[in-house]
Amino acid sequence: MATVQAPAGRSIVLPEPLQLDSGQQLAPVTVAFETYGELAADKSNAVLVCHATSGDQYVASVHPLTGKPGWWDRMVGPGKPIDTNRFHVICANVIGGCMGSTGPASQAADGQPYGMRFPVITIRDMVRAQVAMLAELGIERLYAAIGGSMGGMQALSLAANWPDIPERVLVVGATATMPAQNIAFQEVGRQAIMADPSWQAGDYYGTGKAPDAGLSVARMAAHITYLSEESLTEKFGRRLQDRQAKSFGFDADFQIESYLRYQGLSFTTRFDANSYLYITRAMSYFDLAEEHGGRLADAFEKTRARFCVVSFDTDWLYPTELSRRLVHALNATGTAVSFVELSAPYGHDSFLLDVPALDRVVSGFLNQ
Amino acid sequence: MATVQAPAGRSIVLPEPLQLDSGQQLAPVTVAFETYGELAADKSNAVLVCHATSGDQYVASVHPLTGKPGWWDRMVGPGKPIDTNRFHVICANVIGGCMGSTGPASQAADGQPYGMRFPVITIRDMVRAQVAMLAELGIERLYAAIGGSMGGMQALSLAANWPDIPERVLVVGATATMPAQNIAFQEVGRQAIMADPSWQAGDYYGTGKAPDAGLSVARMAAHITYLSEESLTEKFGRRLQDRQAKSFGFDADFQIESYLRYQGLSFTTRFDANSYLYITRAMSYFDLAEEHGGRLADAFEKTRARFCVVSFDTDWLYPTELSRRLVHALNATGTAVSFVELSAPYGHDSFLLDVPALDRVVSGFLNQ
Repeated sequence: MATVQAPAGRSIVLPEPLQLDSGQQLAPVTVAFETYGELAADKSNAVLVCHATSGDQYVASVHPLTGKPGWWDRMVGPGKPIDTNRFHVICANVIGGCMGSTGPASQAADGQPYGMRFPVITIRDMVRAQVAMLAELGIERLYAAIGGSMGGMQALSLAANWPDIPERVLVVGATATMPAQNIAFQEVGRQAIMADPSWQAGDYYGTGKAPDAGLSVARMAAHITYLSEESLTEKFGRRLQDRQAKSFGFDADFQIESYLRYQGLSFTTRFDANSYLYITRAMSYFDLAEEHGGRLADAFEKTRARFCVVSFDTDWLYPTELSRRLVHALNATGTAVSFVELSAPYGHDSFLLDVPALDRVVSGFLNQ
Repeated sequence: MATVQAPAGRSIVLPEPLQLDSGQQLAPVTVAFETYGELAADKSNAVLVCHATSGDQYVASVHPLTGKPGWWDRMVGPGKPIDTNRFHVICANVIGGCMGSTGPASQAADGQPYGMRFPVITIRDMVRAQVAMLAELGIERLYAAIGGSMGGMQALSLAANWPDIPERVLVVGATATMPAQNIAFQEVGRQAIMADPSWQAGDYYGTGKAPDAGLSVARMAAHITYLSEESLTEKFGRRLQDRQAKSFGFDADFQIESYLRYQGLSFTTRFDANSYLYITRAMSYFDLAEEHGGRLADAFEKTRARFCVVSFDTDWLYPTELSRRLVHALNATGTAVSFVELSAPYGHDSFLLDVPALDRVVSGFLNQ
């Protein structure tokens, strides 16, 4: 595959340079976004949905590169739990991403792609860009900020650092502090990309070669962590792929092997490897407690939002224990928070899949 | 690193070709091994220790390439749980390996290294080679067969397929049927190696280039699965490596990142990438039930050995549930089996580390 090119969609160029946590400035900054549903005259019904690592702004509309439905199509739309008959839903591609927001594939001042000259960003920087986008859209308050996985981290960062903006914060399968095991898995993914000679120290744009092999391996490794052992056994077990017997070779004999190879390969058709480096780096840096003097509760001192925290019993990547810690910190500041661990078989990916109990939780929380 | 070269040690060339599960024959077959302690005149005290994925025959002696103590030095030796004052301990490098036993780096009939022409082997093939080695050594019965992880699978395969040989079988942190999640992780490792252009379809021997980058990534990914989330948090947490603050770059900022990179890199100095492909393939194929008509209990119909099965509460790669299934199958055949889940913080790697309770279990079982 050649370099992934994002199609032109809706976007805003921020009027000011973005001051980053690293101390660097980023300018110009484009934020690409999609909206669903009408904004009320009093602007009281805006809901920001934040996407996860491999997501994008196409939360409820057809993805322009894959032709597939939006990644949360089941959750966002008319009559759905995040009801676009009622809410004005906004979803922006994170900076560092590759679907139209400024990222490593964007042009730097010298007219060449940034590549690895793109500054290392944080989750807070991603949110900073979205806050600036909201300002440009004339939206000062959000009815709700919602996200799963890395999207949940953004929702938390928004609540902690811009406490006046969200009235409700819904965090699904996420953490306030990235744990060591997740840092480890993400480091493997980055090393897989950087070990690919086609990566060329990040300067592969326009060369006709991209580190697809490395990105594919990174995606395969990550994908396993999104599933539960139970769902893998249920869905694939040790079943063979289109054959009666093992081949005694290195083809994908097992369905799970074939599935993973497909997941890895197809990811390279819609995602930029450098973006994967920057986005996972931002996640591994995420520590809301550290940002606020080492005490997580202090992060939420000023927020008046009410929270809803959801975990899944089979999510071993962001287990319930991490959500519980977050809830304890919210409790310590007297914040209104409801917390539920849902039972769902799909592991971390449960937030994206058919879990009717999650629909009810989301819908119920937005009606409070 | 250039191709890993195994130093010459003790070895036997098998007198007959090895008939493999694939239907192919392998010849000639060298089995490299080490022994510790004297063989009794009546040959009643032989203990076979089987090594895990990345192990070798140097169970209790200095590794000739790394200069480090044997991988189970704490368990095997004079006065230790597997007491070499009493037992004659034998440990052989598996075929497909790279420490002297015939593997993909060995010469094929045409005088060139096998590379990917080496036949795909199974766990039973590995055991078959060791059974032939024992015959050459004049050893018909084993006081015990012992192994952790892939070593445990070999011990199980021995008991199932050569039921007259072992009198005792000790299986630690292993399974009788490789589950889907483990197949998945191993597929990622193989894809990382095969994605490395230096792999050259396996024909890298003598080219001065080896797929070290791919092998390193494979090892990093595997290594995470050997540890527990608790031990990662305890040992590394989010601590930074030799710095006061994050670098806002892609260096190994976190200790866990630095540790994993080291684990990956150092592995390439002692392990052959093709061997990694073949050995993990053998593991993913392992299904003792399937080998015996689909019913695990039938695998143990003829064995008269007594068993001891050990799992660790923090081992999420080979969790207690898998050991329990094995024990149920053994129970179903009326086999004498003791089963214990030990509490140890180190995840799957617990079997290699300082877990005094395991010492007591091993020592107690060998004294029965």
